[in-house]
Amino acid sequence: MLRVGIVGATGYTGRELVRLLGRHRRVQLTCLTSESHAGEAFSEVFPEFAGLCAINLEKFSPERLQEKADFLFSALPHGLSRERVPELLKISGRVIDLSGDFRLTDAALYPVWYGYEHGREALLKESVYGLPELNRQAIAGARLVANPGCYPTSILLALKPLLQEKLVDLGEIIIDAKSGVSGAGRSPKLPFHYPECSENFKAYRVASHQHTPEIEEQAGLLAGDGDIIVNFTPHLVPMVRGILSTIYLKLKKPLPQEDLFSLFKAHYGEETFVRIHLPPRLPETRFVWGTNFCDLSLRLDGRNGRLILVSAIDNLVKGAAGQAVQNMNIMQGWPEEEGLF
Amino acid sequence: MLRVGIVGATGYTGRELVRLLGRHRRVQLTCLTSESHAGEAFSEVFPEFAGLCAINLEKFSPERLQEKADFLFSALPHGLSRERVPELLKISGRVIDLSGDFRLTDAALYPVWYGYEHGREALLKESVYGLPELNRQAIAGARLVANPGCYPTSILLALKPLLQEKLVDLGEIIIDAKSGVSGAGRSPKLPFHYPECSENFKAYRVASHQHTPEIEEQAGLLAGDGDIIVNFTPHLVPMVRGILSTIYLKLKKPLPQEDLFSLFKAHYGEETFVRIHLPPRLPETRFVWGTNFCDLSLRLDGRNGRLILVSAIDNLVKGAAGQAVQNMNIMQGWPEEEGLF
Amino acid sequence: MLRVGIVGATGYTGRELVRLLGRHRRVQLTCLTSESHAGEAFSEVFPEFAGLCAINLEKFSPERLQEKADFLFSALPHGLSRERVPELLKISGRVIDLSGDFRLTDAALYPVWYGYEHGREALLKESVYGLPELNRQAIAGARLVANPGCYPTSILLALKPLLQEKLVDLGEIIIDAKSGVSGAGRSPKLPFHYPECSENFKAYRVASHQHTPEIEEQAGLLAGDGDIIVNFTPHLVPMVRGILSTIYLKLKKPLPQEDLFSLFKAHYGEETFVRIHLPPRLPETRFVWGTNFCDLSLRLDGRNGRLILVSAIDNLVKGAAGQAVQNMNIMQGWPEEEGLF
Amino acid sequence: MLRVGIVGATGYTGRELVRLLGRHRRVQLTCLTSESHAGEAFSEVFPEFAGLCAINLEKFSPERLQEKADFLFSALPHGLSRERVPELLKISGRVIDLSGDFRLTDAALYPVWYGYEHGREALLKESVYGLPELNRQAIAGARLVANPGCYPTSILLALKPLLQEKLVDLGEIIIDAKSGVSGAGRSPKLPFHYPECSENFKAYRVASHQHTPEIEEQAGLLAGDGDIIVNFTPHLVPMVRGILSTIYLKLKKPLPQEDLFSLFKAHYGEETFVRIHLPPRLPETRFVWGTNFCDLSLRLDGRNGRLILVSAIDNLVKGAAGQAVQNMNIMQGWPEEEGLF
Repeated sequence: MLRVGIVGATGYTGRELVRLLGRHRRVQLTCLTSESHAGEAFSEVFPEFAGLCAINLEKFSPERLQEKADFLFSALPHGLSRERVPELLKISGRVIDLSGDFRLTDAALYPVWYGYEHGREALLKESVYGLPELNRQAIAGARLVANPGCYPTSILLALKPLLQEKLVDLGEIIIDAKSGVSGAGRSPKLPFHYPECSENFKAYRVASHQHTPEIEEQAGLLAGDGDIIVNFTPHLVPMVRGILSTIYLKLKKPLPQEDLFSLFKAHYGEETFVRIHLPPRLPETRFVWGTNFCDLSLRLDGRNGRLILVSAIDNLVKGAAGQAVQNMNIMQGWPEEEGLF
Repeated sequence: MLRVGIVGATGYTGRELVRLLGRHRRVQLTCLTSESHAGEAFSEVFPEFAGLCAINLEKFSPERLQEKADFLFSALPHGLSRERVPELLKISGRVIDLSGDFRLTDAALYPVWYGYEHGREALLKESVYGLPELNRQAIAGARLVANPGCYPTSILLALKPLLQEKLVDLGEIIIDAKSGVSGAGRSPKLPFHYPECSENFKAYRVASHQHTPEIEEQAGLLAGDGDIIVNFTPHLVPMVRGILSTIYLKLKKPLPQEDLFSLFKAHYGEETFVRIHLPPRLPETRFVWGTNFCDLSLRLDGRNGRLILVSAIDNLVKGAAGQAVQNMNIMQGWPEEEGLF
Repeated sequence: MLRVGIVGATGYTGRELVRLLGRHRRVQLTCLTSESHAGEAFSEVFPEFAGLCAINLEKFSPERLQEKADFLFSALPHGLSRERVPELLKISGRVIDLSGDFRLTDAALYPVWYGYEHGREALLKESVYGLPELNRQAIAGARLVANPGCYPTSILLALKPLLQEKLVDLGEIIIDAKSGVSGAGRSPKLPFHYPECSENFKAYRVASHQHTPEIEEQAGLLAGDGDIIVNFTPHLVPMVRGILSTIYLKLKKPLPQEDLFSLFKAHYGEETFVRIHLPPRLPETRFVWGTNFCDLSLRLDGRNGRLILVSAIDNLVKGAAGQAVQNMNIMQGWPEEEGLF
Repeated sequence: MLRVGIVGATGYTGRELVRLLGRHRRVQLTCLTSESHAGEAFSEVFPEFAGLCAINLEKFSPERLQEKADFLFSALPHGLSRERVPELLKISGRVIDLSGDFRLTDAALYPVWYGYEHGREALLKESVYGLPELNRQAIAGARLVANPGCYPTSILLALKPLLQEKLVDLGEIIIDAKSGVSGAGRSPKLPFHYPECSENFKAYRVASHQHTPEIEEQAGLLAGDGDIIVNFTPHLVPMVRGILSTIYLKLKKPLPQEDLFSLFKAHYGEETFVRIHLPPRLPETRFVWGTNFCDLSLRLDGRNGRLILVSAIDNLVKGAAGQAVQNMNIMQGWPEEEGLF
């Protein structure tokens, strides 16, 4: 049994990690840290775990973590993760960070999009972008995996077959994405107060969301062209979980819709966690609720040749904790789906 | 007092008309028809109207309507409206039809998008597309007003200033729209069953929704170019009311964001029912809930010059019944906002 | 036009007052105070009022209020209202307080249920409990009206006909009440964070809610017996607005269900804002959504004679701002429904 | 591996059985019947099962079932189950019926509460009421288990410790229960149409719900007194899953609250699926969402000695499919929690 600790366990991502790791047959959860709830039982903070998780929350302590855990997940908020991860790596040797702090290749993007100088450039360079369907091999050998953002996961998995085949006009990628409210985290704030976001729909951070450079960098790597600029608009949906991304593309050359489906089918034929829905069916977020699946489909608008991709994930699973478990499985050489069904 | 009747009063649009007309000081509701609920009190079908509306539902009867009403709204489903409207016109002389049956200019589009031959071409030609901010003068003199669709209303009001100024690359209009469930009507069907659409988000009728040609025709008229093809993707939001449309445009020449706001402010300065939200604010559907407003804003993505418009309406008010009342006010020469605040 | 001010205008109750008073033909809103948002436009805090309310929020200032308003609503939180109301009375002569601070007759109950010594006993004695269907005449002549709590409104209107007829076993009153989330106010807190209360139902403050003594005192006055103890259990419903109370009673003598309906019909025949629903219909919160109605019905369990009352209101309207407007209308000698349809 | 079939697999209960049995290590799902969807893949009807369940739906056929399954669940609607179960018993020897058709002891109650003559009295007599915490031993040896109703499960588990200790005044049991919409099944009907039940709360079938006699019979057996009459009022909550029951009791003799908690703790100490929440915590439906737990707590109203029980389950799991799996585990002599975590 691998002894696993979670640093920052009382956010939604931490909770989801506990849920998934509690079912994992090769893992024993040994340590959960929380600055705000130290001393409380995890099941006091999340009573749904009464009888299921008997661990008490502790303040962050390198000594305790070293003593108790051989593998660490960091579910700290971005900005803070960057400061803790070097220490976590010393403690356990292998770390999966669920924040945005080690996802970007270019450190110069952090001040622009995250509002701080990175200052851990060597580690940033070393870290592996943890999208298994892209980087399986590198993940297997990584010390530090930067678990992808929820929006980028849904978007990159949709784009990958087309970008790798160089079918896409890279100057014309438009991404309209919609997320449930759990994506905003567990800290109560007015925009996520029930009476404010029930029966409401809105766009936010139009043309300025911090996931934009993450999408662009990885899309650039997939396309073999580092200078992609996308238009990315996130929206808030009155539901708890789920992301649906609708992506508008121009193809470089006309292709029949069925060839595009064939391409996707072939491309993802071996992947456990990517499902292609054929017409008339389209992905819906409830299809992936609570699961590690990314569901994809597409439609070609025959009238002007524009391609529309639709991609659905559960933002807390494939978009966060589930993908982190998938990454851990790969790093440990275990079956990738272990603990995820 | 104008004596008003509603044909097909037991759908969500009919109900909303009753709500709005019940508050209108110059109107007396005299007749409500329903084939499925004839003989019942309107307030039995909609108990929220107990004590507020004492009218009994009747089967459709030209004689009764003629006797009781001087102005008619048709809230029949499309397909059926087309058959009834000629008769309604004979009865009352002035009709507002809330279906799609008289909205398209080109009768040849009906078999393609609606699945039937139109067969009332003369009336189709005569009917006026009832978007007051576009066609106020023609509406004032019309016998038959085709009340716009909910999606097209939210989209055309956003596009209008830019199209009329010929600022938009007409080949690159992408519309990603999201609607609450009341847009699907009041007939219970599995996709709108509570457990199926709560905590769910999905796209539907991608590249095939019947509002597409309506948007294209009217956008073409605004731009002075009849051959616009747009990409239009509707989505279903787990809420009852509201449409938010996110529109992606390429400008023909670069313009600073503030000039675009100035254009919108100037363009809609006189309009009661169009509101422009300045940064950092963006439209949200709850801002327009239950009202006849269309709320607009925009963002320029400075990195590639793409313009993003955001538009919000209440699909049952500005997207249906409210706009119909606004049209009636115009046709009657009354203040346009009468009954709408 | 009566010049009206609202002290504490940026909670949900304050906002609802602005909505209702904005439509009231005999009233001009002149002054809105807010400590947290002073200096901002009301429509910046609540963008749904853009174009509808042009008032700027001000810090509380007796001088300003005196200069601008002839009638005041206090929508301050309880505890604070108690301190401000004496001053407000000096300013305007007539005040409606929407907090719990002047609702109880017995000052000794405040430390027990509200956690503070009252300290304004003379004013407490003078204040009139503002349930129009109970106290219309006293309200008409009052200087200070204590606007009832949301739960007590729904409960007392259901109980009144039976208590006044002395039909109820006073030792056996059980009240199971359910409220939407807006009842918890506008301050973001974890239990009302969207992901925590969506898709969730719970009881709270069982046998300890501060509305209990308010219900008991008024029920005692209705029954002519001051020592009523009820069991009152509030619950939180994943919706924004609405209260439904289910009340279980033992009758002192058996009565057929139809006689009970006759009693209710006769009792409330003259009341504009109380509606009785006959079988098979039962009140639902959506019937009263956004309105000042209290909808009532009842069922007699023929097997053991227990009577079940069901009562529905909109907690922000009949349970708060609407009832306050109704009270103002009475105090001013205006038609009671003015501004409420 | 036990080969298992489900008759009537395309309702919400059937789907939940497939979800749970798909994870069960000792079971192989071999046969799913559906009259309306025969010929389709289960994963076409429920696309969330794409890649997870490869079974095709078949019409009901005794031969096929006999050939393929050694254990059968019937998830047919009540009325129909009664007709099919005798045949299912012949086929597999062991059947769990999830309808109400074999739950009542007294056949004479069926015409009153279910609207039909039972006509299978011998089988009714033989069937075992499948609440494991009550009837574990009888379930182990049963051929036919009648899986309890969702409301009765939540209620009987709350009442059991007190009834068995004869602490309750049996003439004064009042049950106010609230259920999510999935309890109404998967057939689209107007009251469960999204726009009708979102943002709405209501009582229904007051004093007439068919679960009443089931509660009364089993409560009578627990109390050793066959003539219990309860007041039972179900309500509809705008959420998909979950039941919360609030139960009001008079104790025969006064007891301190802590003794009552001790009683519950001792009573359910060995039970895997019953959890007691201590003050200040109370059960919430989200604590049990997707699980087989029944969460309980209580409060004594010190002012009049009334006891309030609060009980929460997931109506589709402990209230239906999960409990059925628990029953199967008992019938097979397997660990009771197998497949349920």
